[in-house]
Amino acid sequence: MAVSNSYVVIKAHIDGSPKESDFELKSESISLLLDSGSNDVILKNLYLSIDPYQLNRMKSQSSSQIYSTLAAAINPGEAINGYGVGEVLVSGNPEFQKGDLVVGLITWGEYSVIKPGGMLRKLELMGFPLSNHVGILGFSGLTAYAGFFEVCKPKKGEKVFVSAASGSVGNLVGQYAKLFGCYVVGCAGSKEKVELLKEKLGFDDAFNYKEQTDLKATLKRYFPDGIDIYFDNVGAEMQEAAIANMNLFGRVAICGVISEYTDSGRKAAPDMIDIVYRRIKIQGFLAADFLNVYADFISTTCDHLRAGKMHILEDISTGVESIPSSLIGLFRGHNVGKKMVQLSDT
Amino acid sequence: MAVSNSYVVIKAHIDGSPKESDFELKSESISLLLDSGSNDVILKNLYLSIDPYQLNRMKSQSSSQIYSTLAAAINPGEAINGYGVGEVLVSGNPEFQKGDLVVGLITWGEYSVIKPGGMLRKLELMGFPLSNHVGILGFSGLTAYAGFFEVCKPKKGEKVFVSAASGSVGNLVGQYAKLFGCYVVGCAGSKEKVELLKEKLGFDDAFNYKEQTDLKATLKRYFPDGIDIYFDNVGAEMQEAAIANMNLFGRVAICGVISEYTDSGRKAAPDMIDIVYRRIKIQGFLAADFLNVYADFISTTCDHLRAGKMHILEDISTGVESIPSSLIGLFRGHNVGKKMVQLSDT
Repeated sequence: MAVSNSYVVIKAHIDGSPKESDFELKSESISLLLDSGSNDVILKNLYLSIDPYQLNRMKSQSSSQIYSTLAAAINPGEAINGYGVGEVLVSGNPEFQKGDLVVGLITWGEYSVIKPGGMLRKLELMGFPLSNHVGILGFSGLTAYAGFFEVCKPKKGEKVFVSAASGSVGNLVGQYAKLFGCYVVGCAGSKEKVELLKEKLGFDDAFNYKEQTDLKATLKRYFPDGIDIYFDNVGAEMQEAAIANMNLFGRVAICGVISEYTDSGRKAAPDMIDIVYRRIKIQGFLAADFLNVYADFISTTCDHLRAGKMHILEDISTGVESIPSSLIGLFRGHNVGKKMVQLSDT
Repeated sequence: MAVSNSYVVIKAHIDGSPKESDFELKSESISLLLDSGSNDVILKNLYLSIDPYQLNRMKSQSSSQIYSTLAAAINPGEAINGYGVGEVLVSGNPEFQKGDLVVGLITWGEYSVIKPGGMLRKLELMGFPLSNHVGILGFSGLTAYAGFFEVCKPKKGEKVFVSAASGSVGNLVGQYAKLFGCYVVGCAGSKEKVELLKEKLGFDDAFNYKEQTDLKATLKRYFPDGIDIYFDNVGAEMQEAAIANMNLFGRVAICGVISEYTDSGRKAAPDMIDIVYRRIKIQGFLAADFLNVYADFISTTCDHLRAGKMHILEDISTGVESIPSSLIGLFRGHNVGKKMVQLSDT
């Protein structure tokens, strides 16, 4: 008994902006009969999270690749993994049974064969749809929660600026910050996204960065009393402008710098003299370092959701063949909220 | 009864590298008779600390000036203040008596008239020479101590890199780090300074940055296992190179960026992708924020000094007229250790 598995690979390393021709759909046959003694788990993939960091793994060389399991290099022709949810079809692992819903590192395909030691755990739905577990209740949510509360250490009333604010992490940072009692301004790349931030997500204000020519002056207008916390998703000029408008003891949490991923020559050069005199702290982080707050994150977020206090923004494409365009779209600002691909019906 | 007071002013704001012609020696007469009811304190200035940050106060505009009392703007023709020690000649303030030795903000001159509210406190010599209280037991020492222990939060065995390592703060950071049990490499700008770091101060290794063309490769050679802590005194390319060689959860403490003070176009643009994946923290700080550890700093440092475990590097010029060249020399690498000017014999 076997299934035909379509999956996505890269044809060559990608060092600039990704395009459709960089990817290829391959097909293989996967036997659903495990060898005797095998501890493999075979999944039907259901939802796959699409995240900007994957592009860094596809570069021809990245000094950072060695520093994180999540950032292990992706080689041409080889299967790609990413965060997602699936359903167990066959299990040689006593921890999982046929029919279990699981979350962890699955493949960019229709099926996953998870070897022992793969990052996988049983999923408790807790009354929320499957897709939520890939976004707001998954790593995007934890990134926003841990980054805001643990890295930024906010105080009520502080002024918070979020870039890529309609993105998977940014929209949640803004919502957490508002619920916590901060003043929140976000920036995004279209009029529609700006409206969404202000009208639906409750941001105090928002602007379209593409309409601005002088980002320092723009932020000065939106933050006449200065910025206390900058949640940086983009890097480059926006980071420089935010730091130039920062208050004493300001904090910058960086979970990604999407504008620098496709252009290695584009780098933030914040004013270090400001950083000294204003005692600014800049900190890079990954959500995986904050599993200690995972239980808090889940319970707080579920409470907010059940009370109708948080909005869920999901941007779902369908079918394995839509994975490349979904990734590409992240770098063109196509997504609104959490980008994911539904690979199969449950 | 009056004294003639020579003091140094700037003739105009200084926006590049400082030079002798930017400064002027002025003279005034100071009455040693206080008006009835005056709370002024008149000091004979003894030792004045010469610090790079003073140049930032002399610029025509600095957004950072508003953020720190220590960084208040210096205007042409006006008296300049700086950290130093003096002897009370006349006091209208009941806290101070004639003959008291005091430490705090004195003027760049032979005498200081300290108004009520001026930063001044009685000095306890604790058996150490006066000059030590301007350097190793003053703000330079506190900057090194607080920056290393409170900002960098070192662990024994960690790899520490110090730039401007023969400077007033750098040499102390290196010594504290060695005494704490870290592996320490410093860089400096001459063969003699490099020898001093290795032979006298006990650095594990040191190099002359002026002899290096590829700083990233240089640091890779000196830190094959990566840098855990970078104590940044210079900014610019050296900071970029240090961050490129940094380990997971590395920390960068920035107390100043001397190479950027004289050239506003020269800025560090560290790789933010490295900062994210390696979870690097960059923090600007001022010693004044760490008065909570002042008592620890003094007791630890005095113990080390009495046990002969720390070396004192002081670079002392004599006479008010040597103040400009002393400041200028900081930006040309002339000083070895703590630069100060002795203004009078005790």
